Amino acid sequence: MAKPIYILNGPNLNLLGQREPGIYGADSLDAIRDRCNPLGEELGFVIDFRQSNHEGELVDWIQQADGASSGVILNAGGYTHTSVALHDAVRAGSVPVIELHLSNIHAREDFRQKSYISPVASGVIFGFGANGYQLAIRAMASLLAENSKT
Amino acid sequence: MAKPIYILNGPNLNLLGQREPGIYGADSLDAIRDRCNPLGEELGFVIDFRQSNHEGELVDWIQQADGASSGVILNAGGYTHTSVALHDAVRAGSVPVIELHLSNIHAREDFRQKSYISPVASGVIFGFGANGYQLAIRAMASLLAENSKT
Amino acid sequence: MAKPIYILNGPNLNLLGQREPGIYGADSLDAIRDRCNPLGEELGFVIDFRQSNHEGELVDWIQQADGASSGVILNAGGYTHTSVALHDAVRAGSVPVIELHLSNIHAREDFRQKSYISPVASGVIFGFGANGYQLAIRAMASLLAENSKT
Amino acid sequence: MAKPIYILNGPNLNLLGQREPGIYGADSLDAIRDRCNPLGEELGFVIDFRQSNHEGELVDWIQQADGASSGVILNAGGYTHTSVALHDAVRAGSVPVIELHLSNIHAREDFRQKSYISPVASGVIFGFGANGYQLAIRAMASLLAENSKT
Amino acid sequence: MAKPIYILNGPNLNLLGQREPGIYGADSLDAIRDRCNPLGEELGFVIDFRQSNHEGELVDWIQQADGASSGVILNAGGYTHTSVALHDAVRAGSVPVIELHLSNIHAREDFRQKSYISPVASGVIFGFGANGYQLAIRAMASLLAENSKT
Amino acid sequence: MAKPIYILNGPNLNLLGQREPGIYGADSLDAIRDRCNPLGEELGFVIDFRQSNHEGELVDWIQQADGASSGVILNAGGYTHTSVALHDAVRAGSVPVIELHLSNIHAREDFRQKSYISPVASGVIFGFGANGYQLAIRAMASLLAENSKT
Amino acid sequence: MAKPIYILNGPNLNLLGQREPGIYGADSLDAIRDRCNPLGEELGFVIDFRQSNHEGELVDWIQQADGASSGVILNAGGYTHTSVALHDAVRAGSVPVIELHLSNIHAREDFRQKSYISPVASGVIFGFGANGYQLAIRAMASLLAENSKT
Amino acid sequence: MAKPIYILNGPNLNLLGQREPGIYGADSLDAIRDRCNPLGEELGFVIDFRQSNHEGELVDWIQQADGASSGVILNAGGYTHTSVALHDAVRAGSVPVIELHLSNIHAREDFRQKSYISPVASGVIFGFGANGYQLAIRAMASLLAENSKT
Amino acid sequence: MAKPIYILNGPNLNLLGQREPGIYGADSLDAIRDRCNPLGEELGFVIDFRQSNHEGELVDWIQQADGASSGVILNAGGYTHTSVALHDAVRAGSVPVIELHLSNIHAREDFRQKSYISPVASGVIFGFGANGYQLAIRAMASLLAENSKT
Amino acid sequence: MAKPIYILNGPNLNLLGQREPGIYGADSLDAIRDRCNPLGEELGFVIDFRQSNHEGELVDWIQQADGASSGVILNAGGYTHTSVALHDAVRAGSVPVIELHLSNIHAREDFRQKSYISPVASGVIFGFGANGYQLAIRAMASLLAENSKT
Amino acid sequence: MAKPIYILNGPNLNLLGQREPGIYGADSLDAIRDRCNPLGEELGFVIDFRQSNHEGELVDWIQQADGASSGVILNAGGYTHTSVALHDAVRAGSVPVIELHLSNIHAREDFRQKSYISPVASGVIFGFGANGYQLAIRAMASLLAENSKT
Amino acid sequence: MAKPIYILNGPNLNLLGQREPGIYGADSLDAIRDRCNPLGEELGFVIDFRQSNHEGELVDWIQQADGASSGVILNAGGYTHTSVALHDAVRAGSVPVIELHLSNIHAREDFRQKSYISPVASGVIFGFGANGYQLAIRAMASLLAENSKT
Repeated sequence: MAKPIYILNGPNLNLLGQREPGIYGADSLDAIRDRCNPLGEELGFVIDFRQSNHEGELVDWIQQADGASSGVILNAGGYTHTSVALHDAVRAGSVPVIELHLSNIHAREDFRQKSYISPVASGVIFGFGANGYQLAIRAMASLLAENSKT
Repeated sequence: MAKPIYILNGPNLNLLGQREPGIYGADSLDAIRDRCNPLGEELGFVIDFRQSNHEGELVDWIQQADGASSGVILNAGGYTHTSVALHDAVRAGSVPVIELHLSNIHAREDFRQKSYISPVASGVIFGFGANGYQLAIRAMASLLAENSKT
Repeated sequence: MAKPIYILNGPNLNLLGQREPGIYGADSLDAIRDRCNPLGEELGFVIDFRQSNHEGELVDWIQQADGASSGVILNAGGYTHTSVALHDAVRAGSVPVIELHLSNIHAREDFRQKSYISPVASGVIFGFGANGYQLAIRAMASLLAENSKT
Repeated sequence: MAKPIYILNGPNLNLLGQREPGIYGADSLDAIRDRCNPLGEELGFVIDFRQSNHEGELVDWIQQADGASSGVILNAGGYTHTSVALHDAVRAGSVPVIELHLSNIHAREDFRQKSYISPVASGVIFGFGANGYQLAIRAMASLLAENSKT
Repeated sequence: MAKPIYILNGPNLNLLGQREPGIYGADSLDAIRDRCNPLGEELGFVIDFRQSNHEGELVDWIQQADGASSGVILNAGGYTHTSVALHDAVRAGSVPVIELHLSNIHAREDFRQKSYISPVASGVIFGFGANGYQLAIRAMASLLAENSKT
Repeated sequence: MAKPIYILNGPNLNLLGQREPGIYGADSLDAIRDRCNPLGEELGFVIDFRQSNHEGELVDWIQQADGASSGVILNAGGYTHTSVALHDAVRAGSVPVIELHLSNIHAREDFRQKSYISPVASGVIFGFGANGYQLAIRAMASLLAENSKT
Repeated sequence: MAKPIYILNGPNLNLLGQREPGIYGADSLDAIRDRCNPLGEELGFVIDFRQSNHEGELVDWIQQADGASSGVILNAGGYTHTSVALHDAVRAGSVPVIELHLSNIHAREDFRQKSYISPVASGVIFGFGANGYQLAIRAMASLLAENSKT
Repeated sequence: MAKPIYILNGPNLNLLGQREPGIYGADSLDAIRDRCNPLGEELGFVIDFRQSNHEGELVDWIQQADGASSGVILNAGGYTHTSVALHDAVRAGSVPVIELHLSNIHAREDFRQKSYISPVASGVIFGFGANGYQLAIRAMASLLAENSKT
Repeated sequence: MAKPIYILNGPNLNLLGQREPGIYGADSLDAIRDRCNPLGEELGFVIDFRQSNHEGELVDWIQQADGASSGVILNAGGYTHTSVALHDAVRAGSVPVIELHLSNIHAREDFRQKSYISPVASGVIFGFGANGYQLAIRAMASLLAENSKT
Repeated sequence: MAKPIYILNGPNLNLLGQREPGIYGADSLDAIRDRCNPLGEELGFVIDFRQSNHEGELVDWIQQADGASSGVILNAGGYTHTSVALHDAVRAGSVPVIELHLSNIHAREDFRQKSYISPVASGVIFGFGANGYQLAIRAMASLLAENSKT
Repeated sequence: MAKPIYILNGPNLNLLGQREPGIYGADSLDAIRDRCNPLGEELGFVIDFRQSNHEGELVDWIQQADGASSGVILNAGGYTHTSVALHDAVRAGSVPVIELHLSNIHAREDFRQKSYISPVASGVIFGFGANGYQLAIRAMASLLAENSKT
Repeated sequence: MAKPIYILNGPNLNLLGQREPGIYGADSLDAIRDRCNPLGEELGFVIDFRQSNHEGELVDWIQQADGASSGVILNAGGYTHTSVALHDAVRAGSVPVIELHLSNIHAREDFRQKSYISPVASGVIFGFGANGYQLAIRAMASLLAENSKT
């Protein structure tokens, strides 16, 4: 059976639903996870859904994902724009990593225009709010299907 | 019945399949269009799929889309990085616009890091090759479904 | 009899009245043209009023203006900020060119602070909305009166 | 009766006619004032025409203008490019302010490309030499006529 | 009774008194805390005083503060200049946050001129050494008194 | 008896209460002065409270302060961001200078991020509105008490 | 027989001979073409000489050139400095492309120092006026001769 | 007996041997540690060899090192380029710190050119792969020998 | 008889002798003036020596100098680095202007590297302390002698 | 008889054929010289072909060329990007100078994009490998023929 | 027998011992050489130790080293930060080159942060004073030992 | 008797009188030297006047000057703007060095605004043409007189 898909959420994403709903939407992170599970099932994947405010823990998880997952969907929150450590962790692994953001980071402050994850991600999705998680799961499934062909 | 979804492709995308397959994939633009149509149908949309090398023509089409389409998926190719005219056209309209790129533009040259489309797009998808078109159609369908709720 | 004054309008100006009225005002481009004609007549000039979304067509028109017009009022829209081709076309001609914008471009995004037209224009007027067209026609008339003295 | 229009001139404008006539024209500031008065009269406004080399005095005058004038035409000369104090004074007032320059500042040195006045001005006119004063008075009249409608 | 005021101290502040006394003063962090408590009491607040070298833990504490405190005094140390995660945490909360530094960060290296906390702080105090803590507690008390009026 | 504390206010601060109350608060500068005096008295200091729109006058006052005051609280308004002359005046003196701003200058335009006063100030306080004046007086009192110990 | 050499000329080059002869020389574009033909013949190539003011048309022609020509000599005029679309078109093809300019673009304005064509051109020639066309034809002939050896 | 030398390794260095062996070499971190121990012994030092993905933990260790070690060899991995907290920790201590990297960081991406550690390190060694650890131990021994002379 | 040489001194130069003697020397401005007079006399010039903290007053004086002096020696102090108004005043005049600084401004802060006076000065002298005044007077005398030859 | 054409080659060009043949080609500098001589002869010029690793020697030769040669073909190698001294030497002379590079410097590192020679060269040729020397000789011959007409 | 190791020293290193001993140490270059020779001998290498103030001579020596040495230790002094010619010389060779500096160049002026040698060096060592030479010799020996294995 | 004053001239200064007399004046370097000698004599110094196009030779001479001269007047020509080696040589010596330029380098190209000599020079003189040499000799004499007092 396929290894799980890791969905890793970075700092402050545990506040979803409370924090600036105009930007991030009204869904809590739990609500989002609950909508991811059935879609994962439908596409044949268990979803391993986590959140941490700690950069080092996110690095740990990406390292673990390398052997233990089929792929990683990474919403690194604020660390996206500042973390060479996450960049290196993604780059060191061999499973595909999809970068995800809820908001349209390019319509916001200058410091959110730079992503250390993008150059080492397989693909990038942002601006679709909570729906982005569904899109990212489908994108991962296609990616894995395609890779398994080669 | 729902208005069509416009999928607008910018300069050099007519070369797909021939042009740097390592970056852009082996599918021709026709092959991509042929895979978009059934998915559109499945989700209840006609797809109006076009390509032009002319910035002005892309501006014209985005303007037309405002009344005539449900939404626009825009792969503006090289004009993405240089066109304030496209930025203004997208901004002037009221249907949702999704920005799409085949390649991971953030893993390429510096001049591809800047997009004039992103700040005015509803959402952005890049790096998934030809699969990005399918993801964008699904993303558009969710967006429209959600908007129709409000 | 005096040659006409060309008033050339760039991309998305055909949307005036619909597009962001808070920034660009409620008048359509037709309404503006209709107010320009009588003022032109009063000052002894036919107004040749055009709009195009195509950079190349604007270049063509500026080239034609060199022999066929008394002067050019140029609202190059989004191409203002990106077009060396328009810069070169203005510079190559010998009739006066006045740069015009409806909105106060210096109170907007950074990318609107740079104009390729300004360094080669005779004068610049912006921020007065539709009234700017009247001001520009008067400015052109004074300019031509003055030049004819020398 | 309408309050006067203030025309405020900054440093070195008292030298007009002597200073670099190739750039600033051959008219003295007095000659310009003398041509402004009849146009003001024609349009129903007294013109209050002043010049100072002192940044603080210009700030004082803009503050006074807030209650005492219908609007301000401001040619801040060299302080245009360096004065946050003038920016704040303009922004604090509620009468319209039109920024004016004799020369085409965008065809000159880099340090003249930046204006602290533009982002807080109602409109901007430059490059028309002494004629710019007439244009600015007309522009102010239109602006005030329009505002009085609302 | 009023909820406590959190005073959160970032990396290396546990070294106070040992580390570069010329810059940071001779007081240990314990000594500072001991001087904060009576002032808090005098103004009617319990002080909850903490220190961590871990960015993630500071994010956690700021999140907790949102429900559990009246306000936060944040001396984020070196993370001030690099942490979008802290920026987002402060911004997500609704209690006031005062940014505090012992040293005059603007008289030091270039990389200390940029603060990710400042744009989302209610107010900022720096350069007063250990006294800054007292000032910040008073500032917080005034802020809360004022807010409670509205 | 102790020499007075100078509180020097720069350009446009005479407009307080009228000018953008959303940013600067509803108190007039007179009201602020009237609240400073009793606190000064309580702490044993006469307050000498002044305002000028003239950079040169502020330089003069800072120079006078060197012999005549115990310390200076300086809200240099717009000159904060542009005046090397004020920087040099502060630096030349030997009494402590505290930099003060009503608004959170780091949450505003880019040109307000740079202060020529900060690197030569003893400490900096901003973002607390009119309360900042009280905080600055207390900060000055502590500073002077501390200095008198050594 | 060898496929033709395309010589593609961009915006405003149709004005040669009229436009700033001090910079661009006194020859018209027709005169230049007439001197290219015999040299082409001598070296065994038909010359296909075109000009357009439209970026999109230049993109079209470069695409056609890929199958239909032996190589392209491209004087992209003002689009040289702004067109990612042309960059991508050149890069997508497999025939050699030589970049050509009449004037010494490095002795002119800053915005002419950047070429989007250079990084994807086989070679670059500029500053030789109309003679540059002859040099470019010879350069192309040598290039093709050399390539045919391998 | 001499206090131990701390060798502190930052994020992703636990992946050595797996992660991009072309850049980082084929040795695992354990293998490297095993080669350090005998050299340390030969030179009279116990080696205390640690790795963490957590910035805060590295800060903790550097603080502990101040009393407990003879000196620190610090390969801070990705935190090298982003951590003011580590900079401050190194600076606060009084034992010598040697900065070490396996790869030649100056032959890599732009964001690896900036080190927050270098300005506060005693010396810097990079580009020698796993051998760098041996060199750094020798360098530390010389440094300590020299210091003990003074 | 020759018109006087103006020696104009800007902000804070009235503090010479007190202000940072390590940088500016131990001489007061009066002492410097007293040493200038005899040298002026020896070379046949009256010296008109002034100081002001007001930018506008310095502009006034430079304007007066145009008719009333043989030349100007200008030590504009802090306004050197920020004043376009002084730049314009110097440029507008026709007598030679020599820029003078006591300290070596290029060995100090970055913001002292930029001079608005230098590009419009005849010559520049800095770093020689009070002796610089003597050198500047001699330089002016040579300049005037040479000009009178032509 | 015509004076010789100098072909001056800068640092490391003596290594041609050995050094990175993928970039610089397989020909040695001697082989290139041997192909230049007959072409020179055919066009009526002696070729004086030199190489030096010393910037000062290249400056010397360019100075000598002013009287002794018809023109200079200058491949300044690495000094192209760093030498104001060479810029000044070229600018001081009156014979035409053609800048030449074997490789396409605009397709390489950022520091090779800047040339101090280009702004003072008559024309520039790069990217054609060893053939560039032949092109440059022909270009020089045309230039000299044209100049001799005027 | 092994070819010698070249140790090449650039400008002003002949002044060691006299020049700023606080930065560069008290040892003369001769003293350093004398300590290098026995270590070289111990490791089986003759040391060829040279110094020049001439950039061109350093280029010459690096070129010679390619055939004549086992490897080069290069302390290029001030040319490190400005010489593309040295960059190219190092890059053209095939023996390993180790970059060495006595001082910690990253703790000094901005212009010393950029090294043209680093990107083409095998490894880099700086900040260890005269001991750096010993470390570099050992580093070279390890490098050569390792290379000889493959 | 006093040691000589070295006057060292850099690249292209041997061309004085021929090279761009509009910028550099009509005097040859020999003529300048001939005018320096008597002034030196008058002030009690032998002048040792030299010129070289070689950066390394200038470094050599500055090193020699340290023991052999009273002071150095250095016109480093184009090396002024690019040479860290000269910066280091000046900085290493203990005799005073005066930087001299004939032209007003701040009224010229951007790359002439940066001097590596200025931060380590005792004083700087430029823009006075050949007269600058006389001024520099007088400045040196004053400097030496003053130093000998202490």
